Amino acid sequence: MEAIGIGLIGTGLMGKAHAFAYRTVKTFFGDVPASRLAVLCDQPLDKARLMADQFGFSKATDDWRALIDDPAVDIVCITTPNKLHSEIALAALAAGKHVHCEKPMALTLEDATTMAEAARTFGGKTIVGYNYIANPAFQHARKLIADGVIGRPVHFRGFVDEDYQADPETPWNWRATKGDAGLGALGDIGCHLVSMMTGLMGPVARITGDIDIIHKTRPLVDGSGHKPVENEDVASALVRFESGISGVISSSRSAWGRKNYLAFEVHATHGMIRFDQERLNELQIFVNTGDSARDGFTTVLTGPAHEPYGALCPAQGHQLGFNELKTIEVHGFLKAIAEGGRAFPDFDHALEFERVVHAIARSAETGKSVFLKPALPES
Amino acid sequence: MEAIGIGLIGTGLMGKAHAFAYRTVKTFFGDVPASRLAVLCDQPLDKARLMADQFGFSKATDDWRALIDDPAVDIVCITTPNKLHSEIALAALAAGKHVHCEKPMALTLEDATTMAEAARTFGGKTIVGYNYIANPAFQHARKLIADGVIGRPVHFRGFVDEDYQADPETPWNWRATKGDAGLGALGDIGCHLVSMMTGLMGPVARITGDIDIIHKTRPLVDGSGHKPVENEDVASALVRFESGISGVISSSRSAWGRKNYLAFEVHATHGMIRFDQERLNELQIFVNTGDSARDGFTTVLTGPAHEPYGALCPAQGHQLGFNELKTIEVHGFLKAIAEGGRAFPDFDHALEFERVVHAIARSAETGKSVFLKPALPES
Amino acid sequence: MEAIGIGLIGTGLMGKAHAFAYRTVKTFFGDVPASRLAVLCDQPLDKARLMADQFGFSKATDDWRALIDDPAVDIVCITTPNKLHSEIALAALAAGKHVHCEKPMALTLEDATTMAEAARTFGGKTIVGYNYIANPAFQHARKLIADGVIGRPVHFRGFVDEDYQADPETPWNWRATKGDAGLGALGDIGCHLVSMMTGLMGPVARITGDIDIIHKTRPLVDGSGHKPVENEDVASALVRFESGISGVISSSRSAWGRKNYLAFEVHATHGMIRFDQERLNELQIFVNTGDSARDGFTTVLTGPAHEPYGALCPAQGHQLGFNELKTIEVHGFLKAIAEGGRAFPDFDHALEFERVVHAIARSAETGKSVFLKPALPES
Amino acid sequence: MEAIGIGLIGTGLMGKAHAFAYRTVKTFFGDVPASRLAVLCDQPLDKARLMADQFGFSKATDDWRALIDDPAVDIVCITTPNKLHSEIALAALAAGKHVHCEKPMALTLEDATTMAEAARTFGGKTIVGYNYIANPAFQHARKLIADGVIGRPVHFRGFVDEDYQADPETPWNWRATKGDAGLGALGDIGCHLVSMMTGLMGPVARITGDIDIIHKTRPLVDGSGHKPVENEDVASALVRFESGISGVISSSRSAWGRKNYLAFEVHATHGMIRFDQERLNELQIFVNTGDSARDGFTTVLTGPAHEPYGALCPAQGHQLGFNELKTIEVHGFLKAIAEGGRAFPDFDHALEFERVVHAIARSAETGKSVFLKPALPES
Repeated sequence: MEAIGIGLIGTGLMGKAHAFAYRTVKTFFGDVPASRLAVLCDQPLDKARLMADQFGFSKATDDWRALIDDPAVDIVCITTPNKLHSEIALAALAAGKHVHCEKPMALTLEDATTMAEAARTFGGKTIVGYNYIANPAFQHARKLIADGVIGRPVHFRGFVDEDYQADPETPWNWRATKGDAGLGALGDIGCHLVSMMTGLMGPVARITGDIDIIHKTRPLVDGSGHKPVENEDVASALVRFESGISGVISSSRSAWGRKNYLAFEVHATHGMIRFDQERLNELQIFVNTGDSARDGFTTVLTGPAHEPYGALCPAQGHQLGFNELKTIEVHGFLKAIAEGGRAFPDFDHALEFERVVHAIARSAETGKSVFLKPALPES
Repeated sequence: MEAIGIGLIGTGLMGKAHAFAYRTVKTFFGDVPASRLAVLCDQPLDKARLMADQFGFSKATDDWRALIDDPAVDIVCITTPNKLHSEIALAALAAGKHVHCEKPMALTLEDATTMAEAARTFGGKTIVGYNYIANPAFQHARKLIADGVIGRPVHFRGFVDEDYQADPETPWNWRATKGDAGLGALGDIGCHLVSMMTGLMGPVARITGDIDIIHKTRPLVDGSGHKPVENEDVASALVRFESGISGVISSSRSAWGRKNYLAFEVHATHGMIRFDQERLNELQIFVNTGDSARDGFTTVLTGPAHEPYGALCPAQGHQLGFNELKTIEVHGFLKAIAEGGRAFPDFDHALEFERVVHAIARSAETGKSVFLKPALPES
Repeated sequence: MEAIGIGLIGTGLMGKAHAFAYRTVKTFFGDVPASRLAVLCDQPLDKARLMADQFGFSKATDDWRALIDDPAVDIVCITTPNKLHSEIALAALAAGKHVHCEKPMALTLEDATTMAEAARTFGGKTIVGYNYIANPAFQHARKLIADGVIGRPVHFRGFVDEDYQADPETPWNWRATKGDAGLGALGDIGCHLVSMMTGLMGPVARITGDIDIIHKTRPLVDGSGHKPVENEDVASALVRFESGISGVISSSRSAWGRKNYLAFEVHATHGMIRFDQERLNELQIFVNTGDSARDGFTTVLTGPAHEPYGALCPAQGHQLGFNELKTIEVHGFLKAIAEGGRAFPDFDHALEFERVVHAIARSAETGKSVFLKPALPES
Repeated sequence: MEAIGIGLIGTGLMGKAHAFAYRTVKTFFGDVPASRLAVLCDQPLDKARLMADQFGFSKATDDWRALIDDPAVDIVCITTPNKLHSEIALAALAAGKHVHCEKPMALTLEDATTMAEAARTFGGKTIVGYNYIANPAFQHARKLIADGVIGRPVHFRGFVDEDYQADPETPWNWRATKGDAGLGALGDIGCHLVSMMTGLMGPVARITGDIDIIHKTRPLVDGSGHKPVENEDVASALVRFESGISGVISSSRSAWGRKNYLAFEVHATHGMIRFDQERLNELQIFVNTGDSARDGFTTVLTGPAHEPYGALCPAQGHQLGFNELKTIEVHGFLKAIAEGGRAFPDFDHALEFERVVHAIARSAETGKSVFLKPALPES
């Protein structure tokens, strides 16, 4: 297999994770083309050069359009601030490139829709960075449900919290604006929960949301006063899936002590599965055997029995890290490119996640439930 | 202090807990009148006599009206099936007795309201069996919040689950009917959560509910077919408190693996408190100190520093049990009788809990939010 | 059945627990004689009277010999400081009474041996207060092992820690002396661990110990200086059971954060059982099924399936407390008195526990392993 | 900085981890030379070629001597079966190369000693693969102790368990022989515990060990019978450190349910620190503040405040994996090579770990304590 050329835009948290993932994917998996780290883009150019040396890219640029146009680049990785995702992705698709875009896709549902349409038009492969669903623990939860191990699901609860906006004294920044950040907790982290929820429970039919801006204003860095926060710190919703099953979800970016709490419970007719991303290598499983002297939640440590854990580490309980989930995500993308088929989640899949988080926000604004089949009237 | 005469109606789970509590309260606390176990009522009379011998009651009867009228009885304890609570309580109050009634107060909000009015009319002291709020861990959580240790509360989440109706093959019984049981999960266990929630967050202003009957029918014991389930297995709600703070709650009686999961999270400006009744002697506290190398959730084991734990057990981490929470509840009731003042929660307090659970059910039926200030129009 | 008269000596932590246990045992169990709380002894007499009123005893005295001689007393409960156990127990047995003695039996192995001989001579029933082995969780662990659920045991680890002597500034008191307290951590808490260990693994054949006085001196209360600590703060040992299996144990009274950590692991050919008294209503069970995708430690919440939990509380996961373990202990004692047979652990059984803890101390002193069959030479 | 050439011998579990670590170290850290993946050695050659392609090595060989002699190789990474470590390491050092050797160093203490001497003679940098001590959680525990946060250490407990030899039906293999594997549990995993223990508590002065072969024989793969197991399944020891502090440790390779349990407790005068590698991103810290209403074990999630976590992942609680600990180890090695100074643990350091595990085995054989200062007589 010929090596695939990678063009990466952005060198922050997720930029580094992308560099890591493309560097390691073939070492771990073997069954995909090698990745050629071709071009790295950041600004200013000096920074791009420095990071290209560190990450192992052959070339550096401060012009993302040049990166897209570079014939050495097959995949364009977008890890810029959210507001640039849409423009870059559209340009990359139009240039015939594959696109690996961080979540959320865009600030607005309209832009995300346009991106999905462009992907269909131009034919480039796409994937959006929902790396938590690449976790073998999560995939195993899906498998247990599909195999009927806990019976038929009957209820869902999901939560995603961090505390990066918990401190009232944290200064105001662009994250607080609709213009630069779009949604708040829902866009940053709520969409991760939705990617898990729909993977476990299927599509959402109706949603009733409530959102709250906990810290109405934040102090300006220069001490000159306070400025309003425009988007939600916390969002909660009552959910009905197309299956008719009920659920409830909640997300906060102002939850002290929560560093990466992304947790769910699937209640079912013969058991329950629980998971929390803060212990990402564990799954909690209860299966009713009728023997209450022995039944309880079992803490399963992930290992080679939970694919594709074994490709990364052959010993159970030795644990994968956050970055390695990104490698699994990249593996799926490279497989789709090399062998055909859709990666998951591509722009069309991810658009569904976006629709749910925007529906929560809309419901909260209107005070009415939102039905996600557009053909149906709103309540 | 003169001994107080106890008349107990019912000898099931909660009947035994009442007998236990009145037998032990003075041994533990010292500062209340002794309890004289006067009359025990159950049916048939033979059973009443047997249990009177076991529990240590002087007299047995199969007629609750006779118990109420017995001059040896000062407090009437009601641990009968829920549908009898109202009639017995009204009769006992009218007879000038104090009333210790298990939750929920009644099947309907109307009956509960009548009970609260009767208590005000006749002047007997009342208390309703919300024993989980007697837990020193819970009371300490309240104290931490009141003392500002975690700052100002900004969000609430609460859950209460059991699995006694999780098995689809569990036969149909009276619990499945509105006529005999009233509400389902909300009435059985949801009200416990509400007693905690309002104790932590203050009164509810608006609530938006969703309920679901997971198992639409249940098999008849005699194998002759299935019969419909009339009340909810699971209920969830979006909450707004009078303070304006948002919250989300959920309750299921069909949650496999959950035996007494009664859990809450209070998110606040400087920390978070978490609790789960399945580990009733532990409290999880996060306080932001700004030192992320050291901050985390602290698991506090209750002990004498958490009043009134020390009255029951002088050693931290040695643990109280479910029954002992009932003793603390009884202690509060006897103090109110001996020293004056209201017990908590008396019929008026408990009526507020009932109003919240019924509001969830009503909101779910109407598809509209319910505002708990009756003067306000519904949305 | 005629009521049994109880004479209780001591009103501290364990005195209250005894009063509680005898007050509640028949309420919970039904199948034993009622307990008549006859005489309470403490000093001064005023205190005895006050506590007799609180605990519900008919009579108070400041003379334990009078209590023993009182014909209303059938069982003498000894909850005094350890140094008095032996003298009182011998007198009570000689007076034809049954004896319920708190652990440890005595300060020295010689005294404990004399007590066991006296019990055999005079024929009174005896029991020693090892209440943790009354825990349904512990008894269930024994049952699982006996039933072969985890296969054949192959290794043991046990720990018991508290922190009441962890603070270097805790003043010197009688607990620090061999004359008044005998052993340190081993006598206070180590013997509890031994009661569990031998219940799970059978008799000890050889033991190799190490002990350490962490805080060599402690400050005098009056600030006049420091005084040496004579007995161990921490003790550890390598164990070989008569079965040939190896084990390791450790105990500390100076372990910050540990409030009642009494934990064990039984490693076996097909699984493992873990327990920790700080979560006394939970048992951790691993059973190898060969399916590493599903195997893990299962957290079992105790309930009615774990006898005799159901006598105290009919609902799983609702939890028993420390005091209720004492009630189960008393239940066993009353059954032995009413129906014949030995209670567990009687003075002979408990003497075996004492022999183990003293062997650890002796091994540590001599630097040699101690073989517990006296006929065998020491290494 | 010029790139450093890597020659890797072995492509199993640890071979892959080495390839991963050298591929990612500069991407994560930036401040070290790039690694040039020069030569990969395995047998047969076809396998070497296949894995060289997967891991990204330029050249493949089936001759480790050729790899050592290749001028493109600066560092020789040894991840072969243990019995080859010594011969390869000596040859590599003699050839002037740096050596990165997996643990244990060798099958015998004599060979390990020779290796340490050779390193001193030839001057190549060395490091041994004790990757668990590279964990930011562990390094932070060391820092907390050094900073006096929990006061002065007074007692130590340590454990390391896996279950790869727990099943009695696991077939006999080379791991069961002294000739091919050397020590059993002590050599495989016990040495990891020792690397942590001495890092936390300083050097060991005296050790008293007990070892046991749980499964005396194992079935042959071909079903033709059973063959004896020569080395220990479980080992325990009483420890005295040079500081005079006591400790106890235990290790089993036959502990069902344990997948990577490598746990310690450091008891100290003002607190305790606990850690378990199965939750490698968490540290449990108790610090006595004197406020028993608030004190408890705090679960700290590692993050950028725990160096060098932030180089690998900028977000607390997002978690590192097993492989990334190897990257941190490699980072230390490359820094030592690029900047001078010793890596930790080099052959001299690691020899001290080996001496402790061999002393446990020797003590168990002789029934006497072993004093680790060779000048001192054995007891």
